[in-house]
Amino acid sequence: MPLFSRFKHCSNCGSPVDYRVPPDDNRERAMCPACGMVHYQNPLNVVGTLPVWEADGRVLLCRRAIEPRHGLWTLPAGFMELGETTAEGALRETQEEAGADIAMGPLFTLLNVVRVGQVHLFYLATLRSLQFDPGPESLEAQLFAEAEIPWEEIAFQTTRETLRCFFDDRRAGRGFGPHAIDIA
Amino acid sequence: MPLFSRFKHCSNCGSPVDYRVPPDDNRERAMCPACGMVHYQNPLNVVGTLPVWEADGRVLLCRRAIEPRHGLWTLPAGFMELGETTAEGALRETQEEAGADIAMGPLFTLLNVVRVGQVHLFYLATLRSLQFDPGPESLEAQLFAEAEIPWEEIAFQTTRETLRCFFDDRRAGRGFGPHAIDIA
Ligand SMILES: [Zn+2]
Ligand SMILES: [Zn+2]
Repeated sequence: MPLFSRFKHCSNCGSPVDYRVPPDDNRERAMCPACGMVHYQNPLNVVGTLPVWEADGRVLLCRRAIEPRHGLWTLPAGFMELGETTAEGALRETQEEAGADIAMGPLFTLLNVVRVGQVHLFYLATLRSLQFDPGPESLEAQLFAEAEIPWEEIAFQTTRETLRCFFDDRRAGRGFGPHAIDIA
Repeated sequence: MPLFSRFKHCSNCGSPVDYRVPPDDNRERAMCPACGMVHYQNPLNVVGTLPVWEADGRVLLCRRAIEPRHGLWTLPAGFMELGETTAEGALRETQEEAGADIAMGPLFTLLNVVRVGQVHLFYLATLRSLQFDPGPESLEAQLFAEAEIPWEEIAFQTTRETLRCFFDDRRAGRGFGPHAIDIA
C-alpha cells in the first residue's frame, strides 16, 4: 500500500533533502541541494467496483484478510497502478480480491478523502457468474441483499457511502449516479 | 510538475534501491535493501475546469507561458495537491492560471492518459465576471465562441476532447456529461 512518508533523501542521488518552496511554486517540496531534484507528493487514486447480481439485486462484498480493518467488509478496490486506466484498475482489483467475473458499467461515485490524500472511484459492475475466488487479501466474497448489509462491519466510509448511494438511487427508481462525495 | 523518474535511492535512508517484487505483491517496486522501504509510483490526477460565460456561451482558454506547449491554448488545469479535493484543486488552478472568478459545476470529463500515468478531471464552471488576471503560467486568458476555438493551437488532447464533448452536448441539447475518455 502506498502510504505517504516524507522524503528524507533524494530519490536520484541519495543526499539528504531540504524542504523549501521552489522558484515559481507556492508549496514546500523536498528539494535536493546536491543534484537539484524536486520531489512532489500528490493524492493517489483508489479504484473499485460495486458488483451487482442482477437476477436478485444482491451486491458483492469482500471480507478483508489484511490490515487495516482485518475481518471487516469492503467493496473490491485498491490503488490504481501505472499502465492502466481507472476502469481497468477497478476491474483488476475486483478480479484480484474477489475472483469475480464482471462486466464493467459506468463511474458511480467519486469520493475525496482529503485527510489521507486519496480519491476513490467506484464503477458499477454486473456479475456474470456466482463463482468467486477470493485472493490472498480477502477471507471471503459474499453477496448481500440490502437488508443483509453488515453496516456495522463495513471497513471504510467510502464503501459505506457508495452502498448508501446505490440503494438510495435504486429505491428512488432514478438513474444511478454519478455521485461526488467529500469524506471529512 | 511531477514527472515520473525512476527511484535510484531510498527516500528514507538514501541507499541505492533494487527493483524487486515484494512478498504479497505482483509488480516490481523500488525496494531498499538497507531499511526495507518499498517505494510505490502511481498515476497522478490533473484537475481543471471548463469555464463558461453564460450570457453568450463563450468558454475561457489560457495561452501557456510555460513548457511544454508554450504559446498554445489550454483549459485551466494542473496537478492536484495534497490537502484539497478534486473540485478544490480545479478551482485553485483556474484562479492561479486565469485569475478567473468562477462558480464550480459538476464533473464533466474523466480522461485517462495511461501513457503518462495521468487521470484528468474537468469540471464545468460558470464565470462570474469578465475580469481575468492570468498568472505566471499563462500569457493571456481569453473567451472563445465555438467557431473561434483555435483547434490547431490547442496544447493538449484532454483539452481538445473536453471542448469537443461540451460543444457536442450543447448542440444536441442534451445534458452535459459526464464523459469517460481514454486517450491513446
Ligand atoms: Zn539529489
Ligand atoms: Zn532505505
